[in-house]
Amino acid sequence: MSNIAGTIAEMKKMLANLERWVDKGVEHATAKKFEPSVLLNSRLVPDQYPLTRQIQAACDAAKFGAARVAGKTPPAHPDTETTVDELKTRIRAVVEYLGSFSAADYAGADKVVVELPWMPGKALAAHDYLNELATPNFYFHITTAYAILRHNGVELGKQDYIGSLNLRDK
Amino acid sequence: MSNIAGTIAEMKKMLANLERWVDKGVEHATAKKFEPSVLLNSRLVPDQYPLTRQIQAACDAAKFGAARVAGKTPPAHPDTETTVDELKTRIRAVVEYLGSFSAADYAGADKVVVELPWMPGKALAAHDYLNELATPNFYFHITTAYAILRHNGVELGKQDYIGSLNLRDK
Repeated sequence: MSNIAGTIAEMKKMLANLERWVDKGVEHATAKKFEPSVLLNSRLVPDQYPLTRQIQAACDAAKFGAARVAGKTPPAHPDTETTVDELKTRIRAVVEYLGSFSAADYAGADKVVVELPWMPGKALAAHDYLNELATPNFYFHITTAYAILRHNGVELGKQDYIGSLNLRDK
Repeated sequence: MSNIAGTIAEMKKMLANLERWVDKGVEHATAKKFEPSVLLNSRLVPDQYPLTRQIQAACDAAKFGAARVAGKTPPAHPDTETTVDELKTRIRAVVEYLGSFSAADYAGADKVVVELPWMPGKALAAHDYLNELATPNFYFHITTAYAILRHNGVELGKQDYIGSLNLRDK
């Protein structure tokens, strides 16, 4: 597996982990008798995105990361989710989309140039885009989502964050 | 540049970004007339590491990431830092160490197997180790360090997080 495919596969796994963190958040809200929407609207800092937007942004970083490096146009997701179920559907849609890529889709990545809508006239080589923007942005939003849940008392630990490993016997 | 080298180069850049976030934290503490050690001892959740340990852990994830994939033994850092200056020295030491690697160091990565001290008898292929452990752990601690500073009022934004980009003209 090329390391690009490995990077995208890891994003796919982390999004599936994220869905489980959200489930644990709902369990916590139910046990403590508060609405899960309290978690979705929580943020660490007043001028930072709440959980809903962190989840949407993590989905987008992964989706655009895979699509742009492969030179494809991803499906649109207009950020209209307001409930846990809608956010889980969004996550699953992106997990499924990421699963549609294989190493062959990145075979031409060395020649792909990524244009950024918010930087007219400028572009990044695909590898630079993946390393310098898509990956740090993805993990920023994934980790901030995790932090918002932890900050609100949801019991998550390192194992929930990392998820499964492709272990082999020594 | 192979994508492994690109991944490590990005960690190096993010650690340099982290040093600037710490500097901004010190400026904030000075302006608000409190000791910077208050920031170093701050955490988002009672049972999560404070800023000092987040910085040390980010340094370690990057250092071990580069070293293990290249089949090398990294320098030891015993986590004894207690001041801003000591933490900045730690960050710089790891930035310098990461800078000593080149793509050639990862040329044999496809055959490298990484043994994990805390999982006797188990191992990960080098690419899996980088994608499934080193990278998510690195960004976990980097982003949590950023979140602790933001949560304590330090004025940081997305540009501080992302840092410089290898932009080219379209």
